[in-house]
Amino acid sequence: MDKASGANEKVGSNPWCPFLIHNLLRKVIKLGKKIKKIGKEDPRRILHSLKVGIALTLVSIFYYVTPLFNGLGSSTMWAVLTVVVVMEYTVGGTLSKGLNRAFATLLAGALGLGAHQLASLAGAKGEPILMSIFVFMLGSGATMATFSRFVPEIKARYDYGVTIFILTFSLVSVSSYRVEELISLAHQRLSTVAIGVATCLFTSLFVFPVWAGGDLHKLVAANLDKLACFLEGLGAEFFVEKMENGNVEGKSFLQSYKSVLNSKATEDSLANFARWEPGHGPFSFRHPWNQYLKIGAITRQFACSIEALNAYISTLQQSHHTTASDPEFKQKIQTACAEMSSETGKALAELASAIRQMKWSSAAGQHLAKAMAAASSVKAIVPAEDSTMLEILRLATIASLLTEVVRCANQVVIAVEELGRLAEFQRPEHGRKAGAVKPIAGVESPPHVVIDIEK
Amino acid sequence: MDKASGANEKVGSNPWCPFLIHNLLRKVIKLGKKIKKIGKEDPRRILHSLKVGIALTLVSIFYYVTPLFNGLGSSTMWAVLTVVVVMEYTVGGTLSKGLNRAFATLLAGALGLGAHQLASLAGAKGEPILMSIFVFMLGSGATMATFSRFVPEIKARYDYGVTIFILTFSLVSVSSYRVEELISLAHQRLSTVAIGVATCLFTSLFVFPVWAGGDLHKLVAANLDKLACFLEGLGAEFFVEKMENGNVEGKSFLQSYKSVLNSKATEDSLANFARWEPGHGPFSFRHPWNQYLKIGAITRQFACSIEALNAYISTLQQSHHTTASDPEFKQKIQTACAEMSSETGKALAELASAIRQMKWSSAAGQHLAKAMAAASSVKAIVPAEDSTMLEILRLATIASLLTEVVRCANQVVIAVEELGRLAEFQRPEHGRKAGAVKPIAGVESPPHVVIDIEK
Repeated sequence: MDKASGANEKVGSNPWCPFLIHNLLRKVIKLGKKIKKIGKEDPRRILHSLKVGIALTLVSIFYYVTPLFNGLGSSTMWAVLTVVVVMEYTVGGTLSKGLNRAFATLLAGALGLGAHQLASLAGAKGEPILMSIFVFMLGSGATMATFSRFVPEIKARYDYGVTIFILTFSLVSVSSYRVEELISLAHQRLSTVAIGVATCLFTSLFVFPVWAGGDLHKLVAANLDKLACFLEGLGAEFFVEKMENGNVEGKSFLQSYKSVLNSKATEDSLANFARWEPGHGPFSFRHPWNQYLKIGAITRQFACSIEALNAYISTLQQSHHTTASDPEFKQKIQTACAEMSSETGKALAELASAIRQMKWSSAAGQHLAKAMAAASSVKAIVPAEDSTMLEILRLATIASLLTEVVRCANQVVIAVEELGRLAEFQRPEHGRKAGAVKPIAGVESPPHVVIDIEK
Repeated sequence: MDKASGANEKVGSNPWCPFLIHNLLRKVIKLGKKIKKIGKEDPRRILHSLKVGIALTLVSIFYYVTPLFNGLGSSTMWAVLTVVVVMEYTVGGTLSKGLNRAFATLLAGALGLGAHQLASLAGAKGEPILMSIFVFMLGSGATMATFSRFVPEIKARYDYGVTIFILTFSLVSVSSYRVEELISLAHQRLSTVAIGVATCLFTSLFVFPVWAGGDLHKLVAANLDKLACFLEGLGAEFFVEKMENGNVEGKSFLQSYKSVLNSKATEDSLANFARWEPGHGPFSFRHPWNQYLKIGAITRQFACSIEALNAYISTLQQSHHTTASDPEFKQKIQTACAEMSSETGKALAELASAIRQMKWSSAAGQHLAKAMAAASSVKAIVPAEDSTMLEILRLATIASLLTEVVRCANQVVIAVEELGRLAEFQRPEHGRKAGAVKPIAGVESPPHVVIDIEK
């Protein structure tokens, strides 16, 4: 008892100090846990960090070993600098940056030297002329090179090279005015950059290489698997058990596909790096990386249709109706849906494993054929002669999809309203009607307006 | 006649040379056109390129003016280097990179110097010890800093800072072994980096500033407008005229929303930069940029439902059926759909303009209410007592959505098959069945299998 009260008193005497320490400790622990999780998720990240350490240590040997240092002088710094900026997570990234850096340095250095030689013809008298020529060259060269970075093709593949080009060109044309032995300086600079690039490439390629191409290959297959997981889960749990009462909400298979929707940036950058990589494992140098991007685009479109289906199903589930007037019909269509869903899921899983193993698979086509047969069987269930019925069905589907759209619009209204509140949007003059939009978006529970045309 | 044949002969004598020149010329002209187009699309890009030129010219003055150069020595190079790497398109980008660079240099420099002072206590005798301490420090420091870049929060905001920290720390701890006047060197280095950063910030902030925040604000509104454009176009052209015969394919409003689906990366980076920007125009320093990301996420989800709707409509149009058995019913539901579509479109357009003008608008809510009323009217059209009908409608909608999913799966099969062909996937052993998947995906016209359950 005494102890406890003592502790309380302590807190009371200086309420901030222990609180702050406690807070800091908690943050440090949280960060530690996060770091542990990141390392666990992909241990190659720890290896990469070690690789950067190794590459820097290797290159710093040039500084420490006196004969090597004397040969290159203080330019050795550039080798260290090159290692820090060029070393990337994947082999392709390092290759892309390293080669860009090396060639841009070479090109810009040669151009700058050439310009210097031309300008030096002006002689000592021409110093002001020389100076203005350099300033003009520098400005216009940098302007043009900067603009070229807005061209998407250059941006994607040579962005870093253009930066280094501007940098080297600026440094050479600026230095040429001050440094006497420009040629020897350029030679030193180029050698050190080459040493840095070589160190990076060596470490990237031979110490636990991480291939962008391999990662892209796995990512595309994994994304197909995520969609397969959703469809198989839906087929097994939702359609087979009890259509509208079986609560599938909160199940993990319903969420797994969502990350597929935002995979474009990762895929683009991996494909971009993969193009620089030499052949490795099952991938040749001219592996069709573009085709992976095409599959990725179709997969995202696929994820979109699944998103629409998922949204419709969860709206249905929230409206809790239990009409079961025609059990036979219901059973038939439900079986067909379950078949379509799980067979498509199996087909996708087959495709994913075909990509992973790089083997043709006939199973995917067979599963898809079954899914298609199930889709056709739905046609047969609905009596073909009843054209009014067909009309209604078609229109009702469009109406349902549109209803989903309207529901989405309501969410947008709520989000924009929240923005208006946070950013203090100007209110309309007439009497400050607090929530002109509010009547619709006022209630805070998720599905504000469940318009369910089937009710 | 003579002339022409002469020209032909010329081509004949050296078929490659004119061909190559012609090819090169064509490429140059194409690039020129592209550059012109990029400049026209956003003239601020040309201004940005000029700004980089101006900033470099400004900073190179330090090199050319002798008293300034004598004060800083060859470290002036670091100012040029800083300008080249720090200058970004938006104010927020420049601020983020510049502040990251300045603080990382300061912190790493101080740490490196401190370590040097500690190690120098070892004296001349301790040279090997000193050396191993530095190499170890360098390696482990770089390893830890590199690993921290995998933490998403650090990656998003301080990625560049960590790079510069590694760089400066490496340079200081490496240099400390060679350079005598380390303090003076550190002082020079820091001043030149500060000069570089200041030049960039000055040019970014005061010469035609491009605000990331303003761009994000406009982008979010523009994306809502694109969705509005689709819905209003659909309401006006598709539903009102002739449902399945009116060919809306190829109309521009059908495609405009597609870019919304891939807007995440741009929005994230703009929001990230916007957080660094000081208050400007209508935006305060603490403007709720996160809320824009939320609106963006909902907008993308919205675009997904529209994608599903669009896919369904285009499948319908390709199947060309002309059942018009119950014109009155059709008319009613068509009117309701047109109302839902165009009123939702108008609501979104209102929201976009509300964001743009930063004004509350009650019109969006009113339009949305109308759309909801139309959605409810669909319920009334379908006779409420006929529960079998309702059952069918609900199940049919799910079946239609699933059919779309199956159709998507077919596209995936085709794309993976193409990959298998390009990447030479291993074929199954038993008799090299050329196209095990082919029977389904063989035909090359777009909708290979139009499963239309309403037929």
